[in-house]
Amino acid sequence: MTELMNDLTDLSSDLSGTHDAARAYELDRAHVFHSWSAQAEISPMVITRAEGSHVWDGAGRCYLDFTSQLVFTNLGHQHPRIVAAIQEQAATLCTVAPAFANGTRSEAARLIASHTPGDLDHVFFTNGGADANEHAVRMARLHTGRHKVLTTYRSYHGGTHLAVNMTGDPRRWASDHGSTGTVHFFGPFLYRSAFHATTEAEECQRALEHLEQVVALEGPSTVAAIVLEAIPGTAGIMVPPPGYLAGVREICDRHGIVLVADEVMSGFGRSGRWFAVEHGDVTPDLLTFAKGVNSGYVPLGGVAISDEIHATFAHRAYPGGLTYSGHPLACAAAVATIRTMEDDDLVGRADRLGAEVIGPGLLALAEKHAWIGEVRGTGAFWAVELVSDRETREPLAPYGGSSPEVSAVVKGCQERGMLPFSNFNRIHVVPPLTTTDDEAREGLAILDAALAAAAG
Amino acid sequence: MTELMNDLTDLSSDLSGTHDAARAYELDRAHVFHSWSAQAEISPMVITRAEGSHVWDGAGRCYLDFTSQLVFTNLGHQHPRIVAAIQEQAATLCTVAPAFANGTRSEAARLIASHTPGDLDHVFFTNGGADANEHAVRMARLHTGRHKVLTTYRSYHGGTHLAVNMTGDPRRWASDHGSTGTVHFFGPFLYRSAFHATTEAEECQRALEHLEQVVALEGPSTVAAIVLEAIPGTAGIMVPPPGYLAGVREICDRHGIVLVADEVMSGFGRSGRWFAVEHGDVTPDLLTFAKGVNSGYVPLGGVAISDEIHATFAHRAYPGGLTYSGHPLACAAAVATIRTMEDDDLVGRADRLGAEVIGPGLLALAEKHAWIGEVRGTGAFWAVELVSDRETREPLAPYGGSSPEVSAVVKGCQERGMLPFSNFNRIHVVPPLTTTDDEAREGLAILDAALAAAAG
Repeated sequence: MTELMNDLTDLSSDLSGTHDAARAYELDRAHVFHSWSAQAEISPMVITRAEGSHVWDGAGRCYLDFTSQLVFTNLGHQHPRIVAAIQEQAATLCTVAPAFANGTRSEAARLIASHTPGDLDHVFFTNGGADANEHAVRMARLHTGRHKVLTTYRSYHGGTHLAVNMTGDPRRWASDHGSTGTVHFFGPFLYRSAFHATTEAEECQRALEHLEQVVALEGPSTVAAIVLEAIPGTAGIMVPPPGYLAGVREICDRHGIVLVADEVMSGFGRSGRWFAVEHGDVTPDLLTFAKGVNSGYVPLGGVAISDEIHATFAHRAYPGGLTYSGHPLACAAAVATIRTMEDDDLVGRADRLGAEVIGPGLLALAEKHAWIGEVRGTGAFWAVELVSDRETREPLAPYGGSSPEVSAVVKGCQERGMLPFSNFNRIHVVPPLTTTDDEAREGLAILDAALAAAAG
Repeated sequence: MTELMNDLTDLSSDLSGTHDAARAYELDRAHVFHSWSAQAEISPMVITRAEGSHVWDGAGRCYLDFTSQLVFTNLGHQHPRIVAAIQEQAATLCTVAPAFANGTRSEAARLIASHTPGDLDHVFFTNGGADANEHAVRMARLHTGRHKVLTTYRSYHGGTHLAVNMTGDPRRWASDHGSTGTVHFFGPFLYRSAFHATTEAEECQRALEHLEQVVALEGPSTVAAIVLEAIPGTAGIMVPPPGYLAGVREICDRHGIVLVADEVMSGFGRSGRWFAVEHGDVTPDLLTFAKGVNSGYVPLGGVAISDEIHATFAHRAYPGGLTYSGHPLACAAAVATIRTMEDDDLVGRADRLGAEVIGPGLLALAEKHAWIGEVRGTGAFWAVELVSDRETREPLAPYGGSSPEVSAVVKGCQERGMLPFSNFNRIHVVPPLTTTDDEAREGLAILDAALAAAAG
């Protein structure tokens, strides 16, 4: 018995000492290379604990998480059903290679397919959103026999070479050698219209005419896929006007182009629907996902595939794969996440949170703060566009950059106990779908105070 | 109390029913899209259970796992220390975004840096080997200001677009548009020498002369990186001759080229050293890893970075990242894996397993079976080259293909209760580092019997 207890003590000791914040910081600065950062110019906040809508830093300070980290902890932190599913799967079978079948992976695929629109019933699992988009493009290229991929400016599709070349924001620039067959066009964005439009209907019509022209001039027979974030995320949460997605679908159908909906950020309830394409009543040919599929508790992404594209690879090997495709531990987290979303109607909850609390709350802030140029969004997916001048719509920070004013708003939120999501001149309000109305109101009040303090 | 128990019952029920093998198979065929496969032509084995060196199929049959799945379960299945660490981390903090610091990630980075050679003390975490290689190339390109990447034929570097274009085996062909700046050269492989060499020393010298010529003719000032699997893995486990890696290091130094060692498969003890570059006493500038870093229990990969390349990104933002970089759950599995490897001297064990059991055992098989053309390897990393004619070295299956003979050997192993790793005309012997001598001998005896039966 003593021996057994020693064993158990040994077993649980591997992570001892990893919870000391000062040591965590010191080792981070010595050994951890951070994404998108100048390594000598960062001082990462140590997170030691998290629960529900909150995280705690190394000094024990509590913050309301209005970011869902990188818009992925859709069910908040440490949701007991997901934690239990991970622990149970770990005790049973942590991993098998992709060539085998496994009950947890099968059930995750079934659950995902039960919610994806139309006939997107076949799931290719990846490790995250970038490789999901890379594989979707490969499927589209082989299905059509064409090479070019059309994507929008103001988009993000992932960090690997092809995915970052599909990306239409400044994160592409350093890796952009114009070499992967990607072509960028303008999506609809009435507030900063590329088409001199003055209404949503006009923006929609002109954006579709623009896309039709780009396809015609690139050569329809050269275009494998049009890849769209169903609602562009980090680039600004620009909800497409009614009719836009259906119009793109029609262009794709007319020219035999594969429509890929990137739902990495917008999917799994974030927009108040299971998938954001439902707002436009459109079924794409391929749909990519990650993040919300399992609240990011274990790395997971994937591509949902139509019957027609699946048939292309029925008797012809799909030339792609990865070691951890359909990883059981990641799939267990997906099963628990999706069942919880079903049982607790978290999609409906996100819809109502946006319609009744966040949307009205942000519009009330726009009444008070001259810096707020526009508020837009749906569900738990909102952007606040900050401008120095409401007439000219001059951004409060330049495209691709930051400014003392926006930094002051961010800092003001943090000092008041809220983590905000910021990008250039925007603050995004993207809390977990499980955020209570009171927590949402508390976060909005903090944003209110931070805006007032920063504007002076 | 009853309420609490009901809650606990609810919590553990999300994965109920996922262990039924028939249902797992049915849902797999309906909804799971498999890597590298023609979807209508596969019948995946259902794995329901695994422990140590063994897995069980849906019919309850037990198999000795001589594959480590895809050469990643280096500590075997369901190792209690890794399982406990995953469960403990899940209970504490499943995930945080990469921008924060976290004790488990810090400790994983410290442990990795304590074993990587030289000054490779900074770790950029990814989800797997493909994105690790993609990011290593990006770092090399930005560090040098050059574009081309030289890699070998007979190599594998991952499934995403750039990584699969770096790849030098047939998995590249379908995605090869010659468009990502990759150039392929020949590495040393005496058994099928591209240089008409007859000794290891001659192969080494000629392979280095060949590389020097390729660099000269591509233009040294255009070459950002030479990326080498430290020991090419799936392509055939061709252990480089003494002096080859040092010679490549010297060419890189002379021309200001970044040397990237891909240790995704060869790293973390597989070759009988912590990293396979130690066999050649060489420190690369970047070293990529995945698989063995945490036995694949949670998706994880990364790039270990030299001080010099780290300094390039001290005050200049590194333009790359990913949502799950440094995922705490994956890092917890790495901490437990590495500490177990240290405590149990599993690197020494792999070295001895190769030198005393697998190597001699395979050489004994080569004496008996005319189909065995060559046996090569180190540690728990061995290849058996099957040929129809020892004189001409005609492969028993064509490059990039299969044959009834090799399929019969594979099937014979499975029927006798062993899972073999096969690729074209080769059988690889790549069991967990924790495989006992008796288990290894049992597997070799099965291979012996399968070869005898297939040769008729």
